[in-house]
Amino acid sequence: MHFTAEQRLDGGVLERTFTLGEIPGILWTPASTSAPVPLILLGHPPLGLRTMYPRLVDRARRAAADGFAAATIELPGSGDRPRWAAAEQARADLRRAVAAGGPVDDHVVDALVLPLVEKSVPEWQAALDALLSLPEIGGPVGYSGGVISIGIRLAVVEPRISAAVLFAGSLVPAVLFEEARRVTVPLHVLLQWDDEGNDRRAALDLFDAFGSEEKTLHATMGGHTGVPQFAGESAARFLARHLK
Amino acid sequence: MHFTAEQRLDGGVLERTFTLGEIPGILWTPASTSAPVPLILLGHPPLGLRTMYPRLVDRARRAAADGFAAATIELPGSGDRPRWAAAEQARADLRRAVAAGGPVDDHVVDALVLPLVEKSVPEWQAALDALLSLPEIGGPVGYSGGVISIGIRLAVVEPRISAAVLFAGSLVPAVLFEEARRVTVPLHVLLQWDDEGNDRRAALDLFDAFGSEEKTLHATMGGHTGVPQFAGESAARFLARHLK
Repeated sequence: MHFTAEQRLDGGVLERTFTLGEIPGILWTPASTSAPVPLILLGHPPLGLRTMYPRLVDRARRAAADGFAAATIELPGSGDRPRWAAAEQARADLRRAVAAGGPVDDHVVDALVLPLVEKSVPEWQAALDALLSLPEIGGPVGYSGGVISIGIRLAVVEPRISAAVLFAGSLVPAVLFEEARRVTVPLHVLLQWDDEGNDRRAALDLFDAFGSEEKTLHATMGGHTGVPQFAGESAARFLARHLK
Repeated sequence: MHFTAEQRLDGGVLERTFTLGEIPGILWTPASTSAPVPLILLGHPPLGLRTMYPRLVDRARRAAADGFAAATIELPGSGDRPRWAAAEQARADLRRAVAAGGPVDDHVVDALVLPLVEKSVPEWQAALDALLSLPEIGGPVGYSGGVISIGIRLAVVEPRISAAVLFAGSLVPAVLFEEARRVTVPLHVLLQWDDEGNDRRAALDLFDAFGSEEKTLHATMGGHTGVPQFAGESAARFLARHLK
Protein backbone atom coordinates (compact mmCIF):
# COMPACT_ATOMS: atom_id res chain seq x y z
CA MET A 1 0.00 0.00 0.00
CA HIS A 2 1.47 3.24 -1.20
CA PHE A 3 0.08 6.67 -0.31
CA THR A 4 0.10 8.98 -3.35
CA ALA A 5 -1.37 12.25 -2.02
CA GLU A 6 -3.00 13.72 1.07
CA GLN A 7 -5.11 16.70 2.00
CA ARG A 8 -7.00 17.98 5.03
CA LEU A 9 -10.71 18.53 4.38
CA ASP A 10 -12.74 21.23 6.16
CA GLY A 11 -13.17 20.04 9.69
CA GLY A 12 -9.78 18.37 9.71
CA VAL A 13 -10.56 14.96 8.22
CA LEU A 14 -7.39 13.58 6.58
CA GLU A 15 -7.96 12.27 3.04
CA ARG A 16 -5.21 10.14 1.52
CA THR A 17 -5.22 8.53 -1.89
CA PHE A 18 -3.29 5.30 -2.23
CA THR A 19 -2.53 2.48 -4.58
CA LEU A 20 -2.56 -1.15 -3.65
CA GLY A 21 -0.67 -2.77 -6.50
CA GLU A 22 -2.61 -1.37 -9.47
CA ILE A 23 -5.76 -0.60 -7.52
CA PRO A 24 -6.39 3.04 -6.59
CA GLY A 25 -8.13 3.80 -3.31
CA ILE A 26 -8.93 6.53 -0.80
CA LEU A 27 -8.60 6.52 2.98
CA TRP A 28 -10.23 9.04 5.29
CA THR A 29 -9.32 9.29 8.99
CA PRO A 30 -10.78 11.54 11.70
CA ALA A 31 -9.10 14.87 12.49
CA SER A 32 -7.57 13.57 15.67
CA THR A 33 -7.21 9.99 16.75
CA SER A 34 -5.54 9.04 19.99
CA ALA A 35 -6.23 5.31 19.71
CA PRO A 36 -6.70 3.05 16.68
CA VAL A 37 -10.19 3.60 15.24
CA PRO A 38 -12.77 1.25 13.71
CA LEU A 39 -12.99 1.14 9.91
CA ILE A 40 -15.88 1.35 7.48
CA LEU A 41 -15.32 0.00 3.96
CA LEU A 42 -17.34 2.16 1.58
CA GLY A 43 -18.82 0.11 -1.24
CA HIS A 44 -20.10 1.84 -4.38
CA PRO A 45 -21.57 1.01 -7.78
CA PRO A 46 -19.14 0.38 -10.69
CA LEU A 47 -19.23 3.97 -11.96
CA GLY A 48 -15.65 4.90 -11.05
CA LEU A 49 -14.32 6.56 -7.91
CA ARG A 50 -14.13 9.96 -9.59
CA THR A 51 -17.85 9.91 -10.40
CA MET A 52 -18.76 8.57 -6.98
CA TYR A 53 -16.40 10.91 -5.05
CA PRO A 54 -18.98 13.51 -3.86
CA ARG A 55 -21.21 10.82 -2.34
CA LEU A 56 -18.27 8.86 -0.93
CA VAL A 57 -16.73 11.88 0.77
CA ASP A 58 -20.08 12.71 2.40
CA ARG A 59 -20.26 9.20 3.85
CA ALA A 60 -16.59 9.38 4.91
CA ARG A 61 -17.15 12.70 6.73
CA ARG A 62 -20.08 11.17 8.59
CA ALA A 63 -17.93 8.14 9.51
CA ALA A 64 -15.13 10.43 10.73
CA ALA A 65 -17.61 12.45 12.81
CA ASP A 66 -18.59 9.16 14.48
CA GLY A 67 -14.90 8.46 15.17
CA PHE A 68 -14.34 5.96 12.36
CA ALA A 69 -11.91 5.70 9.47
CA ALA A 70 -13.43 5.03 6.04
CA ALA A 71 -11.83 3.61 2.94
CA THR A 72 -12.73 2.57 -0.56
CA ILE A 73 -11.03 1.08 -3.61
CA GLU A 74 -11.75 1.26 -7.34
CA LEU A 75 -13.71 -1.70 -8.70
CA PRO A 76 -12.16 -3.82 -11.47
CA GLY A 77 -13.12 -2.44 -14.89
CA SER A 78 -14.13 0.99 -13.50
CA GLY A 79 -12.47 4.41 -13.36
CA ASP A 80 -8.86 4.33 -14.56
CA ARG A 81 -8.57 0.57 -14.26
CA PRO A 82 -8.34 -1.47 -17.49
CA ARG A 83 -11.64 -2.05 -19.23
CA TRP A 84 -12.73 -5.58 -19.43
CA ALA A 85 -14.47 -6.79 -22.55
CA ALA A 86 -16.81 -9.37 -21.06
CA ALA A 87 -18.07 -6.92 -18.44
CA GLU A 88 -18.61 -4.19 -21.05
CA GLN A 89 -20.62 -6.65 -23.12
CA ALA A 90 -22.68 -7.75 -20.11
CA ARG A 91 -23.32 -4.13 -19.18
CA ALA A 92 -24.54 -3.35 -22.71
CA ASP A 93 -26.82 -6.40 -22.59
CA LEU A 94 -28.22 -5.24 -19.26
CA ARG A 95 -28.83 -1.71 -20.56
CA ARG A 96 -30.64 -3.12 -23.58
CA ALA A 97 -32.83 -5.39 -21.41
CA VAL A 98 -33.72 -2.55 -19.02
CA ALA A 99 -34.43 -0.14 -21.90
CA ALA A 100 -36.73 -2.75 -23.44
CA GLY A 101 -38.64 -2.76 -20.14
CA GLY A 102 -38.52 -6.52 -20.00
CA PRO A 103 -37.28 -8.72 -17.19
CA VAL A 104 -33.52 -9.15 -17.17
CA ASP A 105 -32.37 -12.65 -18.14
CA ASP A 106 -30.58 -14.56 -15.39
CA HIS A 107 -27.61 -15.17 -17.66
CA VAL A 108 -27.19 -11.42 -18.25
CA VAL A 109 -27.17 -10.82 -14.48
CA ASP A 110 -24.75 -13.69 -13.92
CA ALA A 111 -22.40 -12.51 -16.70
CA LEU A 112 -22.32 -9.01 -15.24
CA VAL A 113 -22.21 -9.70 -11.52
CA LEU A 114 -20.40 -12.99 -10.95
CA PRO A 115 -17.03 -11.95 -12.44
CA LEU A 116 -17.26 -8.63 -10.58
CA VAL A 117 -17.77 -10.48 -7.30
CA GLU A 118 -15.02 -13.01 -8.05
CA LYS A 119 -12.48 -10.31 -8.93
CA SER A 120 -13.35 -7.61 -6.42
CA VAL A 121 -13.90 -9.51 -3.17
CA PRO A 122 -10.24 -10.67 -2.90
CA GLU A 123 -9.22 -7.06 -3.65
CA TRP A 124 -11.35 -5.74 -0.77
CA GLN A 125 -9.76 -8.39 1.45
CA ALA A 126 -6.25 -7.34 0.37
CA ALA A 127 -7.19 -3.72 1.06
CA LEU A 128 -8.42 -4.76 4.49
CA ASP A 129 -5.08 -6.47 5.23
CA ALA A 130 -3.20 -3.29 4.28
CA LEU A 131 -5.56 -0.90 6.10
CA LEU A 132 -5.57 -2.90 9.33
CA SER A 133 -1.76 -2.90 9.33
CA LEU A 134 -1.78 0.91 9.70
CA PRO A 135 -1.23 1.97 13.33
CA GLU A 136 -4.14 4.45 13.26
CA ILE A 137 -6.69 1.81 12.26
CA GLY A 138 -7.89 -0.93 14.56
CA GLY A 139 -11.22 -2.62 14.33
CA PRO A 140 -13.98 -3.62 14.23
CA VAL A 141 -14.75 -3.31 10.52
CA GLY A 142 -18.06 -2.51 8.85
CA TYR A 143 -18.98 -2.70 5.18
CA SER A 144 -21.45 -0.25 3.72
CA GLY A 145 -23.27 0.08 0.41
CA GLY A 146 -22.41 -0.62 -3.19
CA VAL A 147 -23.16 -3.71 -5.24
CA ILE A 148 -25.17 -5.95 -2.90
CA SER A 149 -23.68 -9.17 -4.33
CA ILE A 150 -20.19 -7.99 -3.36
CA GLY A 151 -21.48 -7.20 0.14
CA ILE A 152 -23.04 -10.66 0.45
CA ARG A 153 -19.86 -12.49 -0.59
CA LEU A 154 -17.63 -10.31 1.62
CA ALA A 155 -19.91 -10.84 4.62
CA VAL A 156 -19.74 -14.60 4.06
CA VAL A 157 -16.01 -15.04 3.42
CA GLU A 158 -14.46 -12.25 5.51
CA PRO A 159 -14.69 -12.85 9.27
CA ARG A 160 -13.24 -9.39 10.02
CA ILE A 161 -16.50 -7.76 8.82
CA SER A 162 -18.66 -7.23 11.94
CA ALA A 163 -21.72 -5.49 10.48
CA ALA A 164 -22.97 -4.44 7.06
CA VAL A 165 -25.25 -1.85 5.52
CA LEU A 166 -26.50 -3.16 2.18
CA PHE A 167 -28.43 -1.41 -0.54
CA ALA A 168 -31.29 -3.71 -1.58
CA GLY A 169 -31.09 -4.89 -5.16
CA SER A 170 -32.76 -7.51 -7.26
CA LEU A 171 -30.01 -8.13 -9.84
CA VAL A 172 -28.58 -10.85 -7.66
CA PRO A 173 -27.34 -14.12 -9.19
CA ALA A 174 -29.01 -17.24 -7.78
CA VAL A 175 -25.72 -18.43 -6.29
CA LEU A 176 -25.42 -15.24 -4.26
CA PHE A 177 -29.08 -15.39 -3.22
CA GLU A 178 -28.19 -18.78 -1.71
CA GLU A 179 -25.05 -17.35 -0.08
CA ALA A 180 -27.24 -14.72 1.58
CA ARG A 181 -28.63 -17.47 3.81
CA ARG A 182 -25.10 -17.91 5.22
CA VAL A 183 -24.69 -14.25 6.19
CA THR A 184 -24.81 -13.98 9.98
CA VAL A 185 -23.50 -10.47 10.81
CA PRO A 186 -25.98 -7.76 11.84
CA LEU A 187 -27.46 -6.20 8.69
CA HIS A 188 -29.15 -2.91 7.90
CA VAL A 189 -30.73 -3.09 4.44
CA LEU A 190 -31.80 0.08 2.65
CA LEU A 191 -34.60 -0.30 0.12
CA GLN A 192 -35.86 2.46 -2.15
CA TRP A 193 -39.54 1.54 -2.50
CA ASP A 194 -39.86 2.81 -6.08
CA ASP A 195 -36.37 1.87 -7.29
CA GLU A 196 -36.66 1.85 -11.08
CA GLY A 197 -33.75 -0.57 -11.49
CA ASN A 198 -34.83 -3.16 -8.96
CA ASP A 199 -37.77 -5.48 -8.52
CA ARG A 200 -39.28 -4.82 -5.09
CA ARG A 201 -40.61 -8.34 -4.54
CA ALA A 202 -37.22 -9.86 -5.35
CA ALA A 203 -35.51 -7.39 -3.02
CA LEU A 204 -37.91 -8.34 -0.19
CA ASP A 205 -37.29 -12.04 -0.85
CA LEU A 206 -33.55 -11.43 -0.60
CA PHE A 207 -34.00 -9.60 2.71
CA ASP A 208 -36.03 -12.56 3.94
CA ALA A 209 -33.26 -14.97 2.89
CA PHE A 210 -30.43 -13.38 4.92
CA GLY A 211 -29.42 -15.65 7.77
CA SER A 212 -28.58 -12.83 10.22
CA GLU A 213 -30.37 -12.89 13.54
CA GLU A 214 -30.35 -9.09 13.61
CA LYS A 215 -31.46 -7.64 10.30
CA THR A 216 -33.42 -4.48 9.66
CA LEU A 217 -35.13 -3.39 6.47
CA HIS A 218 -35.33 0.38 6.18
CA ALA A 219 -37.55 1.22 3.21
CA THR A 220 -38.04 4.80 2.10
CA MET A 221 -39.86 6.41 -0.80
CA GLY A 222 -38.26 7.36 -4.07
CA GLY A 223 -36.04 6.03 -6.82
CA HIS A 224 -32.62 4.44 -6.84
CA THR A 225 -30.56 7.55 -6.06
CA GLY A 226 -33.19 9.27 -3.90
CA VAL A 227 -32.20 7.87 -0.48
CA PRO A 228 -33.34 10.58 1.96
CA GLN A 229 -30.84 12.07 4.39
CA PHE A 230 -32.61 10.57 7.43
CA ALA A 231 -32.17 7.07 5.94
CA GLY A 232 -28.43 7.68 5.55
CA GLU A 233 -28.31 8.84 9.18
CA SER A 234 -30.19 5.75 10.31
CA ALA A 235 -27.63 3.55 8.51
CA ALA A 236 -24.76 5.50 10.10
CA ARG A 237 -26.31 4.99 13.54
CA PHE A 238 -26.57 1.26 12.87
CA LEU A 239 -22.83 1.12 12.14
CA ALA A 240 -22.01 3.30 15.13
CA ARG A 241 -24.01 0.94 17.34
CA HIS A 242 -22.14 -2.13 16.10
CA LEU A 243 -18.59 -0.81 15.65
CA LYS A 244 -18.17 1.02 18.96
CA MET B 1 -60.97 16.83 31.87
CA HIS B 2 -60.47 16.12 35.52
CA PHE B 3 -57.13 15.19 37.10
CA THR B 4 -57.52 12.37 39.63
CA ALA B 5 -53.99 11.75 40.89
CA GLU B 6 -50.40 12.77 40.24
CA GLN B 7 -46.93 11.51 41.00
CA ARG B 8 -43.35 12.35 40.05
CA LEU B 9 -41.49 9.46 38.45
CA ASP B 10 -37.73 8.96 38.81
CA GLY B 11 -36.11 11.66 36.74
CA GLY B 12 -38.87 14.12 37.49
CA VAL B 13 -41.45 13.26 34.82
CA LEU B 14 -44.91 14.28 36.08
CA GLU B 15 -47.53 11.54 35.66
CA ARG B 16 -51.16 12.55 36.08
CA THR B 17 -54.20 10.32 35.73
CA PHE B 18 -57.36 11.97 34.52
CA THR B 19 -60.90 11.27 33.45
CA LEU B 20 -62.54 12.77 30.42
CA GLY B 21 -66.22 12.14 31.05
CA GLU B 22 -66.14 8.39 31.73
CA ILE B 23 -62.87 7.75 29.93
CA PRO B 24 -59.76 7.26 32.08
CA GLY B 25 -56.45 8.53 30.79
CA ILE B 26 -52.85 9.33 31.72
CA LEU B 27 -50.77 12.39 30.94
CA TRP B 28 -46.99 12.57 31.28
CA THR B 29 -45.09 15.86 31.08
CA PRO B 30 -41.33 16.54 31.20
CA ALA B 31 -39.67 17.41 34.52
CA SER B 32 -39.36 21.05 33.62
CA THR B 33 -41.12 22.90 30.83
CA SER B 34 -40.60 26.60 30.28
CA ALA B 35 -42.68 26.80 27.11
CA PRO B 36 -45.65 24.71 25.89
CA VAL B 37 -44.37 21.36 24.60
CA PRO B 38 -45.39 19.14 21.67
CA LEU B 39 -47.62 16.17 22.43
CA ILE B 40 -47.46 12.50 21.48
CA LEU B 41 -50.68 10.48 21.71
CA LEU B 42 -49.73 6.95 22.76
CA GLY B 43 -51.92 4.38 21.06
CA HIS B 44 -52.08 0.82 22.39
CA PRO B 45 -53.85 -2.48 21.75
CA PRO B 46 -57.24 -3.05 23.49
CA LEU B 47 -55.78 -4.88 26.50
CA GLY B 48 -56.51 -2.21 29.10
CA LEU B 49 -54.31 0.62 30.35
CA ARG B 50 -53.33 -1.31 33.47
CA THR B 51 -51.91 -4.20 31.43
CA MET B 52 -50.22 -1.84 28.99
CA TYR B 53 -48.86 0.53 31.67
CA PRO B 54 -45.23 -0.73 31.79
CA ARG B 55 -44.78 -0.35 28.04
CA LEU B 56 -46.67 2.97 27.95
CA VAL B 57 -44.60 4.53 30.72
CA ASP B 58 -41.38 3.52 28.92
CA ARG B 59 -42.56 5.30 25.78
CA ALA B 60 -43.72 8.30 27.84
CA ARG B 61 -40.31 8.60 29.55
CA ARG B 62 -38.60 8.57 26.17
CA ALA B 63 -41.02 11.25 24.91
CA ALA B 64 -40.34 13.37 28.00
CA ALA B 65 -36.58 12.99 27.51
CA ASP B 66 -37.08 14.39 24.00
CA GLY B 67 -39.01 17.33 25.48
CA PHE B 68 -42.51 16.11 24.66
CA ALA B 69 -45.66 15.46 26.65
CA ALA B 70 -47.33 12.08 26.12
CA ALA B 71 -50.90 11.04 26.81
CA THR B 72 -53.16 8.07 26.39
CA ILE B 73 -56.77 7.12 27.05
CA GLU B 74 -58.52 3.83 27.71
CA LEU B 75 -60.11 2.25 24.63
CA PRO B 76 -63.88 1.57 24.67
CA GLY B 77 -64.61 -1.93 26.04
CA SER B 78 -61.15 -2.24 27.67
CA GLY B 79 -59.81 -1.91 31.22
CA ASP B 80 -62.44 -0.57 33.64
CA ARG B 81 -64.72 0.67 30.87
CA PRO B 82 -68.03 -1.17 30.32
CA ARG B 83 -67.72 -4.39 28.33
CA TRP B 84 -69.44 -4.40 25.02
CA ALA B 85 -71.12 -7.57 23.89
CA ALA B 86 -70.59 -7.31 20.14
CA ALA B 87 -66.87 -6.64 20.58
CA GLU B 88 -66.48 -9.56 23.01
CA GLN B 89 -68.19 -11.80 20.48
CA ALA B 90 -65.99 -10.56 17.63
CA ARG B 91 -62.88 -11.05 19.75
CA ALA B 92 -63.92 -14.63 20.55
CA ASP B 93 -64.51 -15.25 16.83
CA LEU B 94 -61.09 -13.87 16.01
CA ARG B 95 -59.38 -15.99 18.65
CA ARG B 96 -61.13 -19.08 17.28
CA ALA B 97 -60.09 -18.28 13.68
CA VAL B 98 -56.46 -17.65 14.69
CA ALA B 99 -56.35 -20.80 16.83
CA ALA B 100 -57.69 -22.80 13.88
CA GLY B 101 -54.74 -21.46 11.89
CA GLY B 102 -57.02 -20.41 9.07
CA PRO B 103 -57.31 -17.04 7.41
CA VAL B 104 -59.49 -14.61 9.34
CA ASP B 105 -62.81 -13.87 7.64
CA ASP B 106 -63.25 -10.27 6.54
CA HIS B 107 -66.53 -10.03 8.44
CA VAL B 108 -64.79 -11.05 11.69
CA VAL B 109 -62.19 -8.33 11.18
CA ASP B 110 -64.87 -5.78 10.31
CA ALA B 111 -67.01 -6.71 13.34
CA LEU B 112 -64.05 -6.34 15.64
CA VAL B 113 -62.29 -3.31 14.23
CA LEU B 114 -64.89 -1.03 12.66
CA PRO B 115 -66.90 -0.31 15.85
CA LEU B 116 -63.64 0.21 17.76
CA VAL B 117 -62.55 2.79 15.18
CA GLU B 118 -65.97 4.47 15.11
CA LYS B 119 -66.14 4.78 18.90
CA SER B 120 -62.55 5.53 19.78
CA VAL B 121 -61.49 8.08 17.17
CA PRO B 122 -63.92 10.78 18.41
CA GLU B 123 -62.70 10.03 21.94
CA TRP B 124 -59.07 10.61 20.95
CA GLN B 125 -60.18 13.85 19.31
CA ALA B 126 -62.00 14.96 22.49
CA ALA B 127 -58.89 14.10 24.49
CA LEU B 128 -56.83 16.17 22.08
CA ASP B 129 -59.17 19.16 22.60
CA ALA B 130 -58.76 18.89 26.35
CA LEU B 131 -54.99 18.29 26.30
CA LEU B 132 -54.27 21.18 23.94
CA SER B 133 -56.24 23.51 26.22
CA LEU B 134 -53.67 22.92 29.01
CA PRO B 135 -51.14 25.77 29.21
CA GLU B 136 -48.16 23.38 29.36
CA ILE B 137 -49.07 21.66 26.09
CA GLY B 138 -48.75 23.30 22.70
CA GLY B 139 -48.19 21.42 19.49
CA PRO B 140 -47.42 19.88 17.10
CA VAL B 141 -49.07 16.55 17.83
CA GLY B 142 -47.86 13.09 16.90
CA TYR B 143 -49.69 9.78 17.14
CA SER B 144 -47.81 6.60 17.92
CA GLY B 145 -48.64 2.91 17.94
CA GLY B 146 -51.66 0.85 18.86
CA VAL B 147 -54.40 -0.45 16.58
CA ILE B 148 -53.32 0.58 13.09
CA SER B 149 -56.90 1.12 11.89
CA ILE B 150 -57.41 3.75 14.62
CA GLY B 151 -54.18 5.43 13.55
CA ILE B 152 -55.29 5.47 9.91
CA ARG B 153 -58.68 7.05 10.67
CA LEU B 154 -57.19 9.55 13.11
CA ALA B 155 -54.52 10.59 10.58
CA VAL B 156 -57.24 11.12 7.96
CA VAL B 157 -59.83 13.04 10.01
CA GLU B 158 -57.66 14.94 12.50
CA PRO B 159 -55.66 17.78 10.96
CA ARG B 160 -53.85 18.46 14.25
CA ILE B 161 -51.89 15.20 13.85
CA SER B 162 -48.57 16.11 12.16
CA ALA B 163 -46.80 12.75 12.03
CA ALA B 164 -47.56 9.16 12.98
CA VAL B 165 -45.73 6.01 13.98
CA LEU B 166 -47.88 3.00 13.10
CA PHE B 167 -47.45 -0.64 13.99
CA ALA B 168 -48.00 -2.65 10.80
CA GLY B 169 -50.95 -5.00 10.93
CA SER B 170 -52.95 -7.02 8.49
CA LEU B 171 -56.30 -7.15 10.33
CA VAL B 172 -57.40 -3.99 8.56
CA PRO B 173 -60.95 -3.68 7.21
CA ALA B 174 -61.15 -2.93 3.48
CA VAL B 175 -62.69 0.48 4.15
CA LEU B 176 -59.67 1.49 6.23
CA PHE B 177 -57.25 0.07 3.66
CA GLU B 178 -58.89 2.51 1.22
CA GLU B 179 -58.66 5.35 3.76
CA ALA B 180 -54.92 4.68 4.03
CA ARG B 181 -54.55 6.13 0.53
CA ARG B 182 -55.78 9.46 1.93
CA VAL B 183 -53.20 9.64 4.72
CA THR B 184 -50.70 12.38 3.88
CA VAL B 185 -48.74 13.02 7.11
CA PRO B 186 -45.18 11.67 7.42
CA LEU B 187 -45.34 8.04 8.53
CA HIS B 188 -42.94 5.66 10.23
CA VAL B 189 -44.30 2.11 10.04
CA LEU B 190 -42.88 -0.62 12.27
CA LEU B 191 -43.17 -4.17 10.97
CA GLN B 192 -42.20 -7.28 12.87
CA TRP B 193 -41.05 -9.58 10.08
CA ASP B 194 -42.25 -12.78 11.78
CA ASP B 195 -45.35 -11.36 13.46
CA GLU B 196 -47.46 -14.42 14.24
CA GLY B 197 -50.70 -12.42 14.26
CA ASN B 198 -50.23 -10.57 10.99
CA ASP B 199 -49.88 -11.51 7.36
CA ARG B 200 -46.62 -9.98 6.07
CA ARG B 201 -47.74 -9.61 2.48
CA ALA B 202 -50.93 -7.79 3.55
CA ALA B 203 -48.91 -5.52 5.85
CA LEU B 204 -46.54 -4.62 2.97
CA ASP B 205 -49.53 -3.93 0.69
CA LEU B 206 -50.95 -1.58 3.33
CA PHE B 207 -47.61 0.24 3.59
CA ASP B 208 -47.63 0.60 -0.18
CA ALA B 209 -51.18 2.04 -0.09
CA PHE B 210 -50.44 4.95 2.28
CA GLY B 211 -50.65 8.26 0.42
CA SER B 212 -47.90 9.99 2.42
CA GLU B 213 -45.02 11.42 0.46
CA GLU B 214 -42.66 10.63 3.35
CA LYS B 215 -43.19 7.13 4.63
CA THR B 216 -40.63 4.73 6.03
CA LEU B 217 -40.98 1.04 6.67
CA HIS B 218 -38.75 -0.17 9.49
CA ALA B 219 -38.86 -3.96 9.55
CA THR B 220 -37.08 -5.92 12.26
CA MET B 221 -36.88 -9.58 13.14
CA GLY B 222 -39.10 -11.29 15.65
CA GLY B 223 -42.69 -11.74 16.69
CA HIS B 224 -45.46 -9.30 17.53
CA THR B 225 -44.18 -8.15 20.90
CA GLY B 226 -40.47 -8.50 20.08
CA VAL B 227 -39.78 -4.99 18.76
CA PRO B 228 -36.08 -4.44 19.50
CA GLN B 229 -35.00 -1.42 21.49
CA PHE B 230 -33.18 0.15 18.52
CA ALA B 231 -36.44 0.07 16.51
CA GLY B 232 -38.24 1.94 19.29
CA GLU B 233 -35.43 4.51 19.32
CA SER B 234 -35.65 4.90 15.57
CA ALA B 235 -39.40 5.59 15.89
CA ALA B 236 -38.75 8.12 18.67
CA ARG B 237 -36.18 9.91 16.47
CA PHE B 238 -38.74 10.06 13.65
CA LEU B 239 -41.20 11.83 15.97
CA ALA B 240 -38.49 14.12 17.35
CA ARG B 241 -37.58 15.10 13.79
CA HIS B 242 -41.15 15.99 12.91
CA LEU B 243 -42.46 17.51 16.13
CA LYS B 244 -39.56 19.84 16.92
